[in-house]
Amino acid sequence: MQLTLQDIQAAKKRIAPYINQTPILTSSLLNEWLGHEVFFKCENFQKIGAFKARGGLSTVTWLMETGQQPKQIVANSSGNHAQAVAYAARQFDIPATIFMPEYSSQIKIRATQGYGAKVVLSATRDETDALVREAAKEAGTYWIPPFNHEQVICGQGTAAYEALSELEPIDAVFAPCGGGGLLSGTLIATRGLSPKSQVVGVEPLNANDAAESLRKGSIQRLTGIPNTLADGAMTMAVGELTFEYLKQLDQFYEVEEEAMIYWTQWLSHLLKIRLEPTCALPMEGVRQWLKTQTTKQRVLVIISGGNMDQPTMQKIWARDYLQRPPTLVA
Amino acid sequence: MQLTLQDIQAAKKRIAPYINQTPILTSSLLNEWLGHEVFFKCENFQKIGAFKARGGLSTVTWLMETGQQPKQIVANSSGNHAQAVAYAARQFDIPATIFMPEYSSQIKIRATQGYGAKVVLSATRDETDALVREAAKEAGTYWIPPFNHEQVICGQGTAAYEALSELEPIDAVFAPCGGGGLLSGTLIATRGLSPKSQVVGVEPLNANDAAESLRKGSIQRLTGIPNTLADGAMTMAVGELTFEYLKQLDQFYEVEEEAMIYWTQWLSHLLKIRLEPTCALPMEGVRQWLKTQTTKQRVLVIISGGNMDQPTMQKIWARDYLQRPPTLVA
Repeated sequence: MQLTLQDIQAAKKRIAPYINQTPILTSSLLNEWLGHEVFFKCENFQKIGAFKARGGLSTVTWLMETGQQPKQIVANSSGNHAQAVAYAARQFDIPATIFMPEYSSQIKIRATQGYGAKVVLSATRDETDALVREAAKEAGTYWIPPFNHEQVICGQGTAAYEALSELEPIDAVFAPCGGGGLLSGTLIATRGLSPKSQVVGVEPLNANDAAESLRKGSIQRLTGIPNTLADGAMTMAVGELTFEYLKQLDQFYEVEEEAMIYWTQWLSHLLKIRLEPTCALPMEGVRQWLKTQTTKQRVLVIISGGNMDQPTMQKIWARDYLQRPPTLVA
Repeated sequence: MQLTLQDIQAAKKRIAPYINQTPILTSSLLNEWLGHEVFFKCENFQKIGAFKARGGLSTVTWLMETGQQPKQIVANSSGNHAQAVAYAARQFDIPATIFMPEYSSQIKIRATQGYGAKVVLSATRDETDALVREAAKEAGTYWIPPFNHEQVICGQGTAAYEALSELEPIDAVFAPCGGGGLLSGTLIATRGLSPKSQVVGVEPLNANDAAESLRKGSIQRLTGIPNTLADGAMTMAVGELTFEYLKQLDQFYEVEEEAMIYWTQWLSHLLKIRLEPTCALPMEGVRQWLKTQTTKQRVLVIISGGNMDQPTMQKIWARDYLQRPPTLVA
């Protein structure tokens, strides 16, 4: 069953008391340089520092509202979803156990524990997957997956919903693609609220399983850990639910690492925010898309989050891209 | 003549149409760790990316209001003041020439030109000083100095004024010390609006001319270019005007480079903003001050700006301080 705007609106209503209505930022300098208007919905200022808080809360509030309150919640994640579920469960005093690979960043492990969740570490992602599957069998346990879940998708869609409600008319909406939850929710919200707007997905070229899946018409898996700094887009494959929405996108771009790091530096500089490299992917999509446009456009970019550890910061700032200001020509 | 709250209010009224009412951010995690409430007035989101826009605009709007509109405006600066004066002059279509040392960051030079000012580069700071003095002699020319000017001081004070108007009661206000303009304005605003609040200045230990001046009771100059990453606090000496206000501070801290970089990383991580190392100085002052307090305190920190080039980012993130969360004990 296709989710609709009403489902997004219901999620928004449920989660409103627990999340931040995040700001929309612009850069007059960037708009001048590009000759278009770009709006950034800044989910780095969301609870837990990323849009994922929306999906976690959407699911937990839906469980509460439908009389399905579980005795405990479990999840597996190396990143923002771990914190999102921990944060959401805590709002309703539901015990949460999060299975995380040992290589997860210390900061994210500590933050997840800080939100009151029990963290179980294991050596590989496969082991965490096996452990969460096992734990989910226990009576009264609810497993919140990171993207392939209707209420997670609806929660993620509330970011675009808020932004479009504020900004309409918008010509195109851009979001990064990991497992496809954010993009699916963004698509549903945009089709409902602003049917003429295009919805565009962007993925790292080095982790382009979604683009491959769209080309081949069936879900493709990455074969090894991808070589990308976009840790939010490193998901091995999109989900069956999200793939159906991804097929409805108007456009999909694959972005090289250098272009992503270029935009991470520039958006950080122009907007004065801390943002993950994953968030900078859509901006290169915006640039490529704007080059094909003949009239002045108003576009919306979802800045997905701002949680990075020090090694990632070092890699982002290893070279100097700030010497070369953005243009549509280059 | 001592400036008063009325002067700050007049400046605020004049500049309001041209500046951003910047947001006040908090971190629930930080407040939990410290056991106090810390509010951050985020001038990194100010026009030109720093509080300096306030002082520039305060002076230009005062010139306009008092019938002193000059034919041209000149200034000398290697940093944010250059952009601030260029931006302010442009709002009234007054031609501006900014004298900058060649070693200024390319980004700041380009941004100053981007605001429509003519930039004249020379090899040393002494040469720019000589050139601006010469240029200021020309008829119809007004020279806006970076801090030692009443209207500049009043402009900078509007940041604390806005924050206190929103947050009262506040127990203490912290700001970094470069030439003393921001601290002087902050002192005037706080004494007027919240007379019981302490006002505290913070300076890098490696550029502690203000602390030395306060100890000796007369203005002391740095003898060479100081070894600090706080480029906003590298001013060689405070001004005669600002020194009179600095003498009225309740407390003054000198901070080591490592503590400053520690807080740059942590505030960036917790608040999800881009901030200059200079802004992180006050936070170490806050930590030291809070250790001396026996009851729960509400403190305000002025985050002065967010303009850094890539080499500075590299230096900030060279080591990993995010493994060690903030406490009052350490």
